[in-house]
Amino acid sequence: MVTLADLQVKTLGAPRFDSPLASYVEGRATNQYYVAESDRILMDDTVELVQGREVPWEEIATFEAGGPRARLYFPPRSTRAAIVTCGGLCPGLNNVIRAVVRALDDHYGVPEVLGFRNGYAGLDPASGLTPVVLTRDTVADIHERGGTVLGSSRGARDPGVMVDTLVRHGIDILFVVGGDGSMRGAHVIHEEIERRGLEIAVVGVPKTIDNDIPHIGQSFGFQTAFAKAAESITAAKVEAQGALNGVAVVKTMGRHAGFIACYAALAAQTASFVLIPEVPFAMGGPNGLLAHLRRRVSDRGYAVIVVAEGAAQELLAEAGEGGTDASGNAVLADPARYVLERIRADYAARDEVVTLRYFDPGYTIRSVPADPADAVYCARLAQTAVHAAMSGRTDMVVGRRRHRFVNVPIPAVTQRSHNVSPDGDLWLSVLESTAQPLSMT
Amino acid sequence: MVTLADLQVKTLGAPRFDSPLASYVEGRATNQYYVAESDRILMDDTVELVQGREVPWEEIATFEAGGPRARLYFPPRSTRAAIVTCGGLCPGLNNVIRAVVRALDDHYGVPEVLGFRNGYAGLDPASGLTPVVLTRDTVADIHERGGTVLGSSRGARDPGVMVDTLVRHGIDILFVVGGDGSMRGAHVIHEEIERRGLEIAVVGVPKTIDNDIPHIGQSFGFQTAFAKAAESITAAKVEAQGALNGVAVVKTMGRHAGFIACYAALAAQTASFVLIPEVPFAMGGPNGLLAHLRRRVSDRGYAVIVVAEGAAQELLAEAGEGGTDASGNAVLADPARYVLERIRADYAARDEVVTLRYFDPGYTIRSVPADPADAVYCARLAQTAVHAAMSGRTDMVVGRRRHRFVNVPIPAVTQRSHNVSPDGDLWLSVLESTAQPLSMT
Amino acid sequence: MVTLADLQVKTLGAPRFDSPLASYVEGRATNQYYVAESDRILMDDTVELVQGREVPWEEIATFEAGGPRARLYFPPRSTRAAIVTCGGLCPGLNNVIRAVVRALDDHYGVPEVLGFRNGYAGLDPASGLTPVVLTRDTVADIHERGGTVLGSSRGARDPGVMVDTLVRHGIDILFVVGGDGSMRGAHVIHEEIERRGLEIAVVGVPKTIDNDIPHIGQSFGFQTAFAKAAESITAAKVEAQGALNGVAVVKTMGRHAGFIACYAALAAQTASFVLIPEVPFAMGGPNGLLAHLRRRVSDRGYAVIVVAEGAAQELLAEAGEGGTDASGNAVLADPARYVLERIRADYAARDEVVTLRYFDPGYTIRSVPADPADAVYCARLAQTAVHAAMSGRTDMVVGRRRHRFVNVPIPAVTQRSHNVSPDGDLWLSVLESTAQPLSMT
Amino acid sequence: MVTLADLQVKTLGAPRFDSPLASYVEGRATNQYYVAESDRILMDDTVELVQGREVPWEEIATFEAGGPRARLYFPPRSTRAAIVTCGGLCPGLNNVIRAVVRALDDHYGVPEVLGFRNGYAGLDPASGLTPVVLTRDTVADIHERGGTVLGSSRGARDPGVMVDTLVRHGIDILFVVGGDGSMRGAHVIHEEIERRGLEIAVVGVPKTIDNDIPHIGQSFGFQTAFAKAAESITAAKVEAQGALNGVAVVKTMGRHAGFIACYAALAAQTASFVLIPEVPFAMGGPNGLLAHLRRRVSDRGYAVIVVAEGAAQELLAEAGEGGTDASGNAVLADPARYVLERIRADYAARDEVVTLRYFDPGYTIRSVPADPADAVYCARLAQTAVHAAMSGRTDMVVGRRRHRFVNVPIPAVTQRSHNVSPDGDLWLSVLESTAQPLSMT
Repeated sequence: MVTLADLQVKTLGAPRFDSPLASYVEGRATNQYYVAESDRILMDDTVELVQGREVPWEEIATFEAGGPRARLYFPPRSTRAAIVTCGGLCPGLNNVIRAVVRALDDHYGVPEVLGFRNGYAGLDPASGLTPVVLTRDTVADIHERGGTVLGSSRGARDPGVMVDTLVRHGIDILFVVGGDGSMRGAHVIHEEIERRGLEIAVVGVPKTIDNDIPHIGQSFGFQTAFAKAAESITAAKVEAQGALNGVAVVKTMGRHAGFIACYAALAAQTASFVLIPEVPFAMGGPNGLLAHLRRRVSDRGYAVIVVAEGAAQELLAEAGEGGTDASGNAVLADPARYVLERIRADYAARDEVVTLRYFDPGYTIRSVPADPADAVYCARLAQTAVHAAMSGRTDMVVGRRRHRFVNVPIPAVTQRSHNVSPDGDLWLSVLESTAQPLSMT
Repeated sequence: MVTLADLQVKTLGAPRFDSPLASYVEGRATNQYYVAESDRILMDDTVELVQGREVPWEEIATFEAGGPRARLYFPPRSTRAAIVTCGGLCPGLNNVIRAVVRALDDHYGVPEVLGFRNGYAGLDPASGLTPVVLTRDTVADIHERGGTVLGSSRGARDPGVMVDTLVRHGIDILFVVGGDGSMRGAHVIHEEIERRGLEIAVVGVPKTIDNDIPHIGQSFGFQTAFAKAAESITAAKVEAQGALNGVAVVKTMGRHAGFIACYAALAAQTASFVLIPEVPFAMGGPNGLLAHLRRRVSDRGYAVIVVAEGAAQELLAEAGEGGTDASGNAVLADPARYVLERIRADYAARDEVVTLRYFDPGYTIRSVPADPADAVYCARLAQTAVHAAMSGRTDMVVGRRRHRFVNVPIPAVTQRSHNVSPDGDLWLSVLESTAQPLSMT
Repeated sequence: MVTLADLQVKTLGAPRFDSPLASYVEGRATNQYYVAESDRILMDDTVELVQGREVPWEEIATFEAGGPRARLYFPPRSTRAAIVTCGGLCPGLNNVIRAVVRALDDHYGVPEVLGFRNGYAGLDPASGLTPVVLTRDTVADIHERGGTVLGSSRGARDPGVMVDTLVRHGIDILFVVGGDGSMRGAHVIHEEIERRGLEIAVVGVPKTIDNDIPHIGQSFGFQTAFAKAAESITAAKVEAQGALNGVAVVKTMGRHAGFIACYAALAAQTASFVLIPEVPFAMGGPNGLLAHLRRRVSDRGYAVIVVAEGAAQELLAEAGEGGTDASGNAVLADPARYVLERIRADYAARDEVVTLRYFDPGYTIRSVPADPADAVYCARLAQTAVHAAMSGRTDMVVGRRRHRFVNVPIPAVTQRSHNVSPDGDLWLSVLESTAQPLSMT
Repeated sequence: MVTLADLQVKTLGAPRFDSPLASYVEGRATNQYYVAESDRILMDDTVELVQGREVPWEEIATFEAGGPRARLYFPPRSTRAAIVTCGGLCPGLNNVIRAVVRALDDHYGVPEVLGFRNGYAGLDPASGLTPVVLTRDTVADIHERGGTVLGSSRGARDPGVMVDTLVRHGIDILFVVGGDGSMRGAHVIHEEIERRGLEIAVVGVPKTIDNDIPHIGQSFGFQTAFAKAAESITAAKVEAQGALNGVAVVKTMGRHAGFIACYAALAAQTASFVLIPEVPFAMGGPNGLLAHLRRRVSDRGYAVIVVAEGAAQELLAEAGEGGTDASGNAVLADPARYVLERIRADYAARDEVVTLRYFDPGYTIRSVPADPADAVYCARLAQTAVHAAMSGRTDMVVGRRRHRFVNVPIPAVTQRSHNVSPDGDLWLSVLESTAQPLSMT
């Protein structure tokens, strides 16, 4: 149960400077765009909120609206900001970097930003990675390319060492673009800053290609990623349809959340079955995948199965590959290969023809440039992050929740996760589009 | 001021049949996906709603949640549905047609849908256009192509004649995909049905490439359209940058609302000025576009100006081309050509070199297939429309409002329009991304 | 040594009918487009041909020009044609099918074409696959989709059975779209036809995504395929550059010929090493891949290695997976996984960090629709095939050789293969673009 | 009649240095890739060449093979090269720039190239444009973007002034990328160099989006351009098909040559009529466009007309807009608008409904990045140019003729032009694909 207290964003202190937005408009003072501190958005927007509430109005959970403030904590022009990108690639990283640099320059007169290279490693002198200076010219065209011009890496470094680096470079604001592990790292950096009594803001832009961050709606790069994954589903359908009893299996990203699999399947409109971590299924038996698959192939001549990489883990328990990578993420057994093998064996046992095809877009979906809609989103997220940071907010991330940009404390987005609800309307849409059984257990 | 009464959706009567969702899941009864009638979503989600409300809780404005109902008005299997697409093309029309046909088949056992051709003309026998039968096979691949397989046309026909046609074909449900003019037409059809005491549901899927429908968030096809327009902005920047004092003018759709211009500019990230109908500006004078343009060209060597087709109408009053088309829409004077001519004259008067380039993506942006995210959206909108119609709802449209699918009465979406707010965060993002002056008057 | 005799195309007999091209031009007789029988193209176009020739002029090797003939063997309007697509998918199959149907209709008044389904299996009644009728309307939009609407399969069937099927359906012309195995099959069908003294023409459109057909220049779909593969190389570079000591390995198609690997690498312009079947290399040693790779990673921070699936087979001899598929093609060991594993082991042995990424676009590159240039090529190839068949030519394939469309006997294209020459200018361009060593042995 | 003498490439003198290709291969001397001076390619490859020749063998017209030479005129490492891009944009300019820089660096140890900005203007100090230094790092990603990083401009400058600039910067080689006007300019620069007895090579890479350069096959960027134009044709067909009696007119580039119109129409496969400068037609009369158009619309419900910008000039004589631009190119009257207006009037006069749509992709087709196949071609053209220049060749351009890279004297490519032959197989393919009448006069 999230409370109002969980959603209160920290600040470094009372604001001390006027925003230069006025000077930006060439001598005409205006404040029409400033967000009022009282502008807050209800977490829950259903009628139960107002009719069946259990908390007093004063404590009802609301989010702080993001956007420019009339008063700033950091002085325009002389503020020193830095940015770091962490974890796996995601479409839009360069867009975020570019928009942070541009917004600081255009809006606050901060002409350069320090870029730490290769994730938190770049904040550790032991890595030998020297930071680069980013200006509006050096970032001019980077949004047209995938990846991150700063490089990235997984894993954390000692917070004391990293804060030393921030102090040594005179950094006032650190922007961290990364996943939930990186956001936990940003929170630890914030705690070290707080412990030392420093005036450094830490503002995150959450990155997850799996779209599994709570509270903040769709994550940047997600729609670019599922669009790319949908191309593989379309190709898989072409292959399956072109062969005798063709069955194509498409593997998508999604370790714990099946969003990419669901949206890619809805986008391609040609999947026959979608298998996600949130919805268990059986392979054998009268209501298992194999039985339904045989029926589908027999009826329509082919079938396409979309498998999220985290699906069927209970079925794969015996495989037990296990282990963890540098960020402590569990290494999963491969459900797509497993499903493929079971289908092969099933048809072989019946002495029937099946033509199997395997598709794995792999890293391709995260290495492409952001599509136009994600480009808009990244630019606006980055602008929101810059406004928040300049106002002295810290230990927070930005996000868009139901079309409103919001500021959210880091702990609120790292303490839980976000999954496809097996009872929700997204999964229902998938079931309707695939015509797969409601349950295969 | 929108009230709760304005948002109450009409029904043809009390539901009479059980939904066959259970049979769909192969013998396992379930109702987990059915939407409860009490599920309503607050129109306003800011804290002012709960703290500063002026209406009693019972009357607070809420939207009905879209989705499948446990009880239906029309009988599964034997219901007869028709669909018509009206007005200008928009990416996603074929996706909507396909998903309506598929959802009726997969979910409700309705194996065919009648398609009226070329808009409301197809409902008028005088046009000589015979309807076509759509089945899951005939619509199998249509979502991969732009346009509408049914054809379209502008303008209305006599409602009496059209209802006669519905009766003659034994239609229970008419799906209308069209703009606000077409939705007004659908409302008139509904009124004629009601007057005659017929049991025919009229359910709309609102279409507007300009994204100017109130209440229902982003319209389908909009992001595909602005993405395509953004390509022209990128090309314009390439041309302008490659020339001596290059100035490129890009015209976008947007008669009354500048959404395409704004989003396309944010997506391309390379526009210098964005001119929209909602924000007046001056050409001459010390704070006019020409003065700012000269400065920009002098500073950076080039400039890109994005002009919505409805911009600068007050400046163009003298052009006075006027007139109306078949749907009664005003014919606008062309601001892009005007701006181009003024720039040419301004540089000529100063005897300075300028290289002008004009870009008009025109109809191209509305003729392309839906992009993957719009494909998902169209499928889900159409499923929502099918669920609403089968439950006996009528005189309504479907939409997605802050990520929730909703059912909304037609009058609520045709009595007002939706524009870019000159005080809102979208326009602020545009100003930040272009670094154009806050005001050029 | 190819002789003139090898390049002489067979015909069923002397032409018997006037071409209807005249009627096609609305009453105006003309023959300007007809190809003269004397129009032949030199196989060799270097000056050695004329200065250092060893054969008499009368025997110099030349190709027959493709195109429409003034006189036909088969009667317009009443000719009965069939088409079959065999083997693996390739971009452009639907374009070829569509253009064959359209050219027969528009040019020769043949309004329908029989389509045998799933390759040669569709010519064998035992398969239970009934042929479909293709008309200009049913093929109208198929060129916008990948794959083949007729389906495909590998492997041959008994020629006697297949010729029985042709006779049973009254077929005059059989168009075979397929690879070299399928062309050998077409030749056998021709021999059976000849043995029985039937008047059935067999005309092939050679298909090979690997571009390894001799004499006829670039094969259709090849540039679409390498363009798609180049996307993976670009993604691989993004991943490698974004990581600490990133090394990405991209696997491409190319069992015996490295054309896709070479062209994709040239297109992406970001590969560091290209490994193809035609150029052996060593892994270890001072001039082996591992040593050069370490140097490249050390110099530039990352590297991208493109590996054709048929590369390094001699190094993989010990893996010895072997075996053959239904078409008798050798199953190869996987060089990409091998290279990846050796790199991993090499860095591990030195206790140095390396971040490995693996990319395999797989079937995706052959399942996409033809790109515009391939669309043009497929249409023109198919038109050439239709003209050749109507004139009574048989046991031949069409191709474009140095920008001229030609007719070539099937045996001339199946008795040898076409590879990347390690001494030629294509491989030199690859070496120049990658800056990889001329030799790594 | 082109003679052997016309095709002899000039050199600055006898080569003086060994090529460093050997050092490039890490200590292993080799010359397998060097082109022999005797390697020449026949201009004509038909059998008439050898059987019906009218010139002695010694004088038969042949082209010099392009590629690396074993001996160089300019010293590796210390040679100083410059590059300039002139005239209108074309896809692939940045690819050519990048590959020139990379080839000089990788192959000849020349680490930097001077880039003159904005065409020949950048060689005239009066323009105030200072050249930029290009290195392998500064050009690393430019091929992913359209346009030219050097900028461009039309028109010539005084050759004496330009040669002064070359001398002042110590330039040994000038690469000129431009159209036929720019190549005439390059020839004049060469003449001035020759007059002064300087040792500066001038090597051109011919650029023409219209594909109208003689002798050298398809020009770079051409297929990217027609692919982009084909998108507009597809959009036009979608619009026309979606409307009542829809007629869409698509304008393409092509002032004197209809190649873009022809190839774009063949690529889209949906045009009904193609109008090009090379083939006159009538509007009215029983065999005019209007009559055929009415029939087509009546038969199929819609039509798409592709109009090259230089078509119908004789019909437009009365419009007489005339004039010339800075490069002396004739300004054409607009045939697309003319055709559109005539159709409107024709249907109005008959009181029949027609829905007209106009598409003009305009500059968009030349501002996009090179597609993968053009990327390969640009890289190889640039490598060929670098090899030619280092060997001391001058007053020449590179090209690919029937899949062989060749060196050709500038005068041979500027003294004539290249058009679509109304009697050739390309135009026949267009007639076959559109099913338009062979003649509409």
